[in-house]
Amino acid sequence: MTIDPHTNNNETAVNTSAVSFSTPLNLASGVVLADYELAFETYGTLNDARSNSILICHALSGDHHAAGLDADGKVGWWNHYIGPGKAIDTNDFFVVCPNNIGSCFGSTGPNTINTETGKPWGVDFPSLEVSDWVESQKQLMEHLKIDCWAAVVGGSLGGMQAMHWAINHPTKLKHAVIIAAALKLSAQNIAFNEIARRAIQSDVNFKHGDFLDHQTSPRQGLALARMIGHLTYLSDDALGQKFGRLVRSGDLDGAEKELVEFEVSSYLNYQGDKFATRFDANSYILITKMLDYFDVAQNYQDNPVAAFKQSQCKFLVIAFSSDWRFSPQCSEEITDAIVSADKDVSYLRIESDQGHDAFLLPNEHYEKGLSRYLQRVAQAHFGAQL
Amino acid sequence: MTIDPHTNNNETAVNTSAVSFSTPLNLASGVVLADYELAFETYGTLNDARSNSILICHALSGDHHAAGLDADGKVGWWNHYIGPGKAIDTNDFFVVCPNNIGSCFGSTGPNTINTETGKPWGVDFPSLEVSDWVESQKQLMEHLKIDCWAAVVGGSLGGMQAMHWAINHPTKLKHAVIIAAALKLSAQNIAFNEIARRAIQSDVNFKHGDFLDHQTSPRQGLALARMIGHLTYLSDDALGQKFGRLVRSGDLDGAEKELVEFEVSSYLNYQGDKFATRFDANSYILITKMLDYFDVAQNYQDNPVAAFKQSQCKFLVIAFSSDWRFSPQCSEEITDAIVSADKDVSYLRIESDQGHDAFLLPNEHYEKGLSRYLQRVAQAHFGAQL
Repeated sequence: MTIDPHTNNNETAVNTSAVSFSTPLNLASGVVLADYELAFETYGTLNDARSNSILICHALSGDHHAAGLDADGKVGWWNHYIGPGKAIDTNDFFVVCPNNIGSCFGSTGPNTINTETGKPWGVDFPSLEVSDWVESQKQLMEHLKIDCWAAVVGGSLGGMQAMHWAINHPTKLKHAVIIAAALKLSAQNIAFNEIARRAIQSDVNFKHGDFLDHQTSPRQGLALARMIGHLTYLSDDALGQKFGRLVRSGDLDGAEKELVEFEVSSYLNYQGDKFATRFDANSYILITKMLDYFDVAQNYQDNPVAAFKQSQCKFLVIAFSSDWRFSPQCSEEITDAIVSADKDVSYLRIESDQGHDAFLLPNEHYEKGLSRYLQRVAQAHFGAQL
Repeated sequence: MTIDPHTNNNETAVNTSAVSFSTPLNLASGVVLADYELAFETYGTLNDARSNSILICHALSGDHHAAGLDADGKVGWWNHYIGPGKAIDTNDFFVVCPNNIGSCFGSTGPNTINTETGKPWGVDFPSLEVSDWVESQKQLMEHLKIDCWAAVVGGSLGGMQAMHWAINHPTKLKHAVIIAAALKLSAQNIAFNEIARRAIQSDVNFKHGDFLDHQTSPRQGLALARMIGHLTYLSDDALGQKFGRLVRSGDLDGAEKELVEFEVSSYLNYQGDKFATRFDANSYILITKMLDYFDVAQNYQDNPVAAFKQSQCKFLVIAFSSDWRFSPQCSEEITDAIVSADKDVSYLRIESDQGHDAFLLPNEHYEKGLSRYLQRVAQAHFGAQL
């Protein structure tokens, strides 16, 4: 997903924290993670009642730096939506955003040291499920002495975490905001992820996942994987409007044609190469598999209604009209399941030509919808003024 | 595109012919191809008036073996539609299908010997445009002493050749049948092709295109390229119905998860690997670029209506409801341009859940529509009985 290009020199500088847990984490796979670390950021102030906290769950390529400016001056990936006076208003809420385990931005994952071997985990990092992320976030919650989130909010794979919170820990959140997500992936979704993984695994520098030991990185494969992913996050219309069939330089006549390329190609190549310098290949494989195997109804006889029957929170479900990776139909399936489970749900279908990426990008209706919903949350649960 | 799985032991055995041309071909790029060879097949019998011939134009990965059984017992890629009593009825028509230059199945291309150097052309094979294919097909036409095609028929990139025939050689065809094509590619189409090319070019065995000299092949890259292409030829619904989220073997519990894969992954990997053994990587790059740069209105001030004003034939345009690579909207743009150019056009939108691949697959309405249209062609131009 694209980083929000909305920069602002007046943004608040934030500090990254980290916490180590020595309580073993029993993973869904049966493997036990003896200890692990979570990098996280917080924005706003926890109130005395400790009742105003929002958990932000990041997606495939996200991290804990969701808002403000980090030490490198980089703006957070959801900065347009998190901050004082913004949709997720840090004047009202205490916002917590961890980097998830298995990722590669500071929390324990394939690119961190396995304390048992003294070497990077690499390909030996255990496979994870979305529920494992939720359990690790629950340990962070306890560390922060928060008993109940006012809301758990996430887009894409983040929305899947919000669903698991609602179902697995019904008393631990008041609201779940599920944005551009799905009950489970379609065969087409899985196929795109499979091609991305094969691109990485067939890069000679992947070295069966031991690339860190070989002091190399499968950058070509990672770039390809990202290009495939990125393309599916955009709508055909958005690409058409942004690039059309423009060429980067030169013209289309004769032999010159070899020298030019379409702007869309140049853009995608750039995005792919940039991503390959910052992301870990084993993390990419691990997290796309989490997406593929995610199924909200897995432990409920394939019945999502039975899954949502467990929940006690209220829901906001948001979809974007041009999202073809997790289409409005997917969000409507979530909404229908929640309705059928007799739970309280609001559904917002936002007109946007930005595809799946829309959940990260400025959009007035999306902003207003999210903002009004969370204002009502604040008012209901800790009496913030509208 | 998938090869039609429709096999029949009673199919006619066909022989492949080849013809060498020593008349230089002046390519659109300005480069001159001094001599070249075309492999082709024919089905049916040319009538005395030499007026019953149909040219079949193949798409990206197609070849000259469109119908019947070849020497290896392989069924042609459009066998369901070409043959005695079939939609393209060889009792009425003499059907000609060449392998295009730049491809890799017998006609001159990157994997054939450059007579000037005595070595395979490889990456030095000149870049081509769709109009170059049409010019080479016109030389084949003259070789066969055919003055005018009863129809030029093609799907996908084949439809683009049919359009060029109609516009560039208005007196040389009576009908153009344009199936699942577009006036030009969208930015999304181009982006998928770009990723496919990068997959090939970043394979260490590509050797800057000189893989034949190194007696190797970038099979991993080609397989990836094909997997990306193949996935975009299928609809999400078709994939869902065919595979759902089935796993190939084992179950989803615990550590076993590493050992299983989704059926859709297994299917795509198989398709990719199979393709990589039979297709030439330089041909794939060359032909996807032909697609990207194709623009019917390129020489007509970006006005497709002005382009079609040149034509004198009648048109049949066919689209498939679930095709998202060249959607019905693309076919409707073609149809609208032909209507605006005051030419005679019929448009068929076929309901299908098979995506872009539908143009190759059995479909009763498609068969009937194509069959009736060509029966009328036969009746009008050489009095075949209905």
